[in-house]
Amino acid sequence: MRTGINHLFIPGPTNVPESVRQAMNVPMQDHRAHDFGAPNVGMFRDLKSLFRTKDGHVLLFPGSGTGAWEAAITNTLNPGDRVLMARHGQFSVLWAQMAQRLGLNVDLIDLPWGAGAPISEFARLLGADRKGEIKAVFVTHNETATGVTSDIAAVRRVMDEAFHEALLFVDGVSSIGCLPFEMDAWGVDLAVTGSQKGLMLPPGLGILGVSPKALKASETATMRRAYFEFSDQVKNNETGYYPYTPPVQLLHGLRAALARIAEEGPENVIARHRRLAAGVRAAVKAWGLEVCAESPSLYSDTVTAIRTPDGVDARDVIRIGYDRYNASFGSGLGPLAGKVFRIGHIGDSNEGMCLTAIALAELCLAAAGATIQFGSGVAAAQAVYAQPAIQAAQIAAE
Amino acid sequence: MRTGINHLFIPGPTNVPESVRQAMNVPMQDHRAHDFGAPNVGMFRDLKSLFRTKDGHVLLFPGSGTGAWEAAITNTLNPGDRVLMARHGQFSVLWAQMAQRLGLNVDLIDLPWGAGAPISEFARLLGADRKGEIKAVFVTHNETATGVTSDIAAVRRVMDEAFHEALLFVDGVSSIGCLPFEMDAWGVDLAVTGSQKGLMLPPGLGILGVSPKALKASETATMRRAYFEFSDQVKNNETGYYPYTPPVQLLHGLRAALARIAEEGPENVIARHRRLAAGVRAAVKAWGLEVCAESPSLYSDTVTAIRTPDGVDARDVIRIGYDRYNASFGSGLGPLAGKVFRIGHIGDSNEGMCLTAIALAELCLAAAGATIQFGSGVAAAQAVYAQPAIQAAQIAAE
Amino acid sequence: MRTGINHLFIPGPTNVPESVRQAMNVPMQDHRAHDFGAPNVGMFRDLKSLFRTKDGHVLLFPGSGTGAWEAAITNTLNPGDRVLMARHGQFSVLWAQMAQRLGLNVDLIDLPWGAGAPISEFARLLGADRKGEIKAVFVTHNETATGVTSDIAAVRRVMDEAFHEALLFVDGVSSIGCLPFEMDAWGVDLAVTGSQKGLMLPPGLGILGVSPKALKASETATMRRAYFEFSDQVKNNETGYYPYTPPVQLLHGLRAALARIAEEGPENVIARHRRLAAGVRAAVKAWGLEVCAESPSLYSDTVTAIRTPDGVDARDVIRIGYDRYNASFGSGLGPLAGKVFRIGHIGDSNEGMCLTAIALAELCLAAAGATIQFGSGVAAAQAVYAQPAIQAAQIAAE
Amino acid sequence: MRTGINHLFIPGPTNVPESVRQAMNVPMQDHRAHDFGAPNVGMFRDLKSLFRTKDGHVLLFPGSGTGAWEAAITNTLNPGDRVLMARHGQFSVLWAQMAQRLGLNVDLIDLPWGAGAPISEFARLLGADRKGEIKAVFVTHNETATGVTSDIAAVRRVMDEAFHEALLFVDGVSSIGCLPFEMDAWGVDLAVTGSQKGLMLPPGLGILGVSPKALKASETATMRRAYFEFSDQVKNNETGYYPYTPPVQLLHGLRAALARIAEEGPENVIARHRRLAAGVRAAVKAWGLEVCAESPSLYSDTVTAIRTPDGVDARDVIRIGYDRYNASFGSGLGPLAGKVFRIGHIGDSNEGMCLTAIALAELCLAAAGATIQFGSGVAAAQAVYAQPAIQAAQIAAE
Repeated sequence: MRTGINHLFIPGPTNVPESVRQAMNVPMQDHRAHDFGAPNVGMFRDLKSLFRTKDGHVLLFPGSGTGAWEAAITNTLNPGDRVLMARHGQFSVLWAQMAQRLGLNVDLIDLPWGAGAPISEFARLLGADRKGEIKAVFVTHNETATGVTSDIAAVRRVMDEAFHEALLFVDGVSSIGCLPFEMDAWGVDLAVTGSQKGLMLPPGLGILGVSPKALKASETATMRRAYFEFSDQVKNNETGYYPYTPPVQLLHGLRAALARIAEEGPENVIARHRRLAAGVRAAVKAWGLEVCAESPSLYSDTVTAIRTPDGVDARDVIRIGYDRYNASFGSGLGPLAGKVFRIGHIGDSNEGMCLTAIALAELCLAAAGATIQFGSGVAAAQAVYAQPAIQAAQIAAE
Repeated sequence: MRTGINHLFIPGPTNVPESVRQAMNVPMQDHRAHDFGAPNVGMFRDLKSLFRTKDGHVLLFPGSGTGAWEAAITNTLNPGDRVLMARHGQFSVLWAQMAQRLGLNVDLIDLPWGAGAPISEFARLLGADRKGEIKAVFVTHNETATGVTSDIAAVRRVMDEAFHEALLFVDGVSSIGCLPFEMDAWGVDLAVTGSQKGLMLPPGLGILGVSPKALKASETATMRRAYFEFSDQVKNNETGYYPYTPPVQLLHGLRAALARIAEEGPENVIARHRRLAAGVRAAVKAWGLEVCAESPSLYSDTVTAIRTPDGVDARDVIRIGYDRYNASFGSGLGPLAGKVFRIGHIGDSNEGMCLTAIALAELCLAAAGATIQFGSGVAAAQAVYAQPAIQAAQIAAE
Repeated sequence: MRTGINHLFIPGPTNVPESVRQAMNVPMQDHRAHDFGAPNVGMFRDLKSLFRTKDGHVLLFPGSGTGAWEAAITNTLNPGDRVLMARHGQFSVLWAQMAQRLGLNVDLIDLPWGAGAPISEFARLLGADRKGEIKAVFVTHNETATGVTSDIAAVRRVMDEAFHEALLFVDGVSSIGCLPFEMDAWGVDLAVTGSQKGLMLPPGLGILGVSPKALKASETATMRRAYFEFSDQVKNNETGYYPYTPPVQLLHGLRAALARIAEEGPENVIARHRRLAAGVRAAVKAWGLEVCAESPSLYSDTVTAIRTPDGVDARDVIRIGYDRYNASFGSGLGPLAGKVFRIGHIGDSNEGMCLTAIALAELCLAAAGATIQFGSGVAAAQAVYAQPAIQAAQIAAE
Repeated sequence: MRTGINHLFIPGPTNVPESVRQAMNVPMQDHRAHDFGAPNVGMFRDLKSLFRTKDGHVLLFPGSGTGAWEAAITNTLNPGDRVLMARHGQFSVLWAQMAQRLGLNVDLIDLPWGAGAPISEFARLLGADRKGEIKAVFVTHNETATGVTSDIAAVRRVMDEAFHEALLFVDGVSSIGCLPFEMDAWGVDLAVTGSQKGLMLPPGLGILGVSPKALKASETATMRRAYFEFSDQVKNNETGYYPYTPPVQLLHGLRAALARIAEEGPENVIARHRRLAAGVRAAVKAWGLEVCAESPSLYSDTVTAIRTPDGVDARDVIRIGYDRYNASFGSGLGPLAGKVFRIGHIGDSNEGMCLTAIALAELCLAAAGATIQFGSGVAAAQAVYAQPAIQAAQIAAE
């Protein structure tokens, strides 16, 4: 029998803070009542602030991040449109697969899993696209499968340098709310996330930032869609209502989550993720192991994907963690299965939780056959966490 | 300030039973853990039992009933397919609108709001369709806007009599789990519901019964879809898993809700809805008012739509109920706005709740200007509810 | 199987508002942390305001109202002290029994169950007590068993007129927070309540108002006590802490409950209780039945005790309510068993809840053999509740 | 702002398991309903099984462990009775203080804080008490302030060897349910605990095991008591009811907690506490620090009290833990303030939680000025936790 806390170190669904959990524990209510909408108006405003957009919209689709991906595509593109995508992890692979299923003509750039977005290759292809055939560039901001954060500002730069007018789609599922994200400043047209990551809610909402340009595109885009139609949402959201029954519990939770982020301060949330991640990476280094990400500039501050040593099956690490220590690590996905396990340090977290992850990972790695000096990773992380918070975040950022 | 219980008489989201509410109050968990799937396998089996299907599947889409509508269409039909639909209430109107948006060629039969499915017109059109151009018949089992239950068995009969092979789509959003529903016996191919009605959960799940014939159709259907793709679900569900992050709280709640239904007995759930509805209708009769449904054979046992007398705005009834008595009645939708208010008696309910609805409706009707004898509707309902439960259900069924 | 809401019409534990329920759903915390006390300081201030005392203290004992009774006695009286009490209901009987068990010399005035506090008899006895042998007068403000509210101000008046210095003990378990209560103005020295009545919390706290005079008495009182010692509480409470582990969930709930009362306004809470009670009494009158209380001036606005007609066993009414209609009425206690059932309209309530109680009571009375015209009581209550709130409260007060 | 889990390492209130938390989240109910008692009958049986008593009773007093202490004394002893007690920690000090307040004549044996119960001194005094003047021996099974577990079986042995008939009182607040406890086999007459320790509930219940001999004594004992009267409880409990309003939420929680213990197996619960404690003590040893307990045979498996090095204020350790790392360590009580901090490993715990405590303690000790090698304690604990569970428990027991 499992006892004690289930140590949840997967990169989503993330740990739900108590205040959010409390807020969701409500009886049902009339979603057409005259006072239902008002609190949501502020909520949409706060979401826009979180996405860092002034004139864009943030839409909430009952569903998942996958649903928000689909909404982004079907509302703004036309069948057969040429789009540019890179595959360098499970989630970019799935996204590309969806684009193809939905009838897009996808220019695929295949990269090693662990690479970031191929900025110069994007530059080359966009520059070569004199006729403007490429209608959209899709970028995975934070590849949850590999723990790689790509440079969206750089993508925007090469698009601008090519004077290219393609739409910029960004998968921010495991970044928005945790990593710096600038929808307006980076010229992101479609920004996707879900409720169960940085927003610290249970799964159930696909969340989508839509730029004015994307909204404009949706007026003429001819892909078939109904459930995910932008205009129904935009029209209803203005007064805080929905085109169909919304998941009322999650709306209560979302407002509580946004209140928490406001209380901590979005920049402090980002600094906290940086500090906590730095500790985890210090531990990996102390163990003598490698992370998936190819270079430090790609390190994700929300999830670390750790390669197990040769001969050590990462699935054993995960299974031992779950069965023996009531701990849930993220698994290696696709070709990384058995080679990688992941520690999520995303959402509502703190130093103690990361140290628990590290200490338990040491036990699990050892039990799975790795040569690990007990306490070595913990000590390395402690050295980071011993710094006063602000200083540690700076160190970590270097 | 509102005090006391919010009396929720809308026909969905319905009142969540305490056992379901408890079950949902869980921390997050790893949806890829090796023991995550097992409890869901039984859950899918119980869902099939609730839908009364042996060889069909029941799929769960994070989203809403509207999403399940879309899943049903995009997986089984082809662009431009001719389909048969009737419009006789807000939800059939919206469904038809979706079918058109998704590119179907919809044969529309417009009926008064309050009518049931046009069986003989269906018979005529299906009989005339010698070439089998009609690919699907869409029927709203229980029109939530008008409180009308249509006869699905009769639809199947005329389809069979015409030897017609169209798929039969049924919107069972406000019927499945509460009214008799026989997916296999009635030859229903696509049966749609949501979590927030008879299943007594918060909104957040679109639930879809899929017959073997429909599943077969999905293999070749060419409408574009990704999020709502059947095959991804079917493949994953077999072991109790999902193709994307499932709403884990709702899964816990769904299992608890199915356990409740099993404990009460599905036939007792149906009898209870019949008995409670009979009391509400007796009250309406005692008031001298009319329900929307055109004839007794169409009366819905899950929701009663009540026409206010001339000169009495139903919106006033609802507003007074909400502002003065902390009660939520359903509103008149579309052309019924201001003319109708609705009492939901669906899901987790009992005699006291229906009597509350009736007693408060009397206060609100009077305050809105109707001539209502206080207590008259209550007395009529009490006469029904005074019967022993089984007998009352029989009376009600007559 | 029970379905729908359990209609809880007992006079305590009362229905817990959702905001209070949410607030209590917390993980454990360190009750010695440096920030644990601060929120409680405000809570104690709000409690004093609720008790209407400026210089008194309000103490919280983990336990029940019964425990607070004991705390009041053992801290302020000496073994063998002569005290004055009346017995006119189950709770005054139990209180007197406790006083005797604890070694007091109790002057008992036995009255019919349904009578109020015997003001003139108190006057006579106090006047006759030239030597000041009577050390305390015990009065049950609201006898929950009979639905009788006594006039505490009048008791104070006769004490003052006799220039008597006895302590005034008041059982305000089912009055404080719902009925007018003036600790200072009425010169109440010990005011007892519990968490599960007007404060709308689960049971678990005995709450005790202590006047400066009572606190002074506790310094020299020689009854043995430890758990209930005032001085330990007073000393710790000043900074918001406790002499032993406090029930942390209830503290969270209590703060939320006090916030609700503040939001509604204490005078509005009182007016609401008056209005709701007036409706219930109108129903009883319409049924042709009698309440326990001997005269209108004694009517309780928090609970109504209803005498069943001859030949109708009140226990049947209650049993039918519980087994057939999922409703909980209060039972007749002691000699009233079988003769009385009670409707609590205390705490977090509204018109719909009272109408439910009345409508279900009609069904249960009829099923138990009473001749009741269905809807008659409901109609009478509706006539009261149809008035705008303020006006109804005035009518009810007349 | 605090983020992430509050790491609660105080020795009570302990972490509440999710299943218990769910079970407590209930609306109020009628505690006099005819089906209220039945589930409690099984609960009392399970409690007896937990206390390991066949013919004794286990009583539940709304209140706290302190209240149960008082109940034990006032029901079985007489004013002026001579009793034997040792003081070797804050809780034994407070217990002795209560005994004196309640009018007992207390033979006090003062020992260093860190000592166990003075078996041989007890033997000497009991042997010398030829007239049987000593009416009771009070022993603190597990001194929560010092982390010392005393040998109750040995106390019973010396009582038996002296043919002494005194009652044996045992404070099992932080032992029962976690450490081996044998009420019948050890001849314990009064066994005290609270809800918020090994029973993993919020505070709010004082729980008291009463032997037949103690119950017999209560029939003639002359101390005044009312709230804590045994006979009222015993009589009502037989059918699962209570003499006054019980804390219904806690009863739901208690049943869930007992179900957990039964599922894990009481002997496995004990083994788990032993294993987890062994890891914590290994860490303390690795740090080069001392625990309070004077010798290994006294080590408590539920709480470890750790002496900080000279010059390091334990209050700083605790404050840093709370303010910087959202962690709650137990403080040094009374004369140990500033010299000791405590780690609770009691109740619903696991390896990860203990490793978190150790890792954070290292950070806090270092920040407070101690010379601590980061990771050293963690590594020592990991070495214990790396063993398969059963083996580790054996090692720990050696």
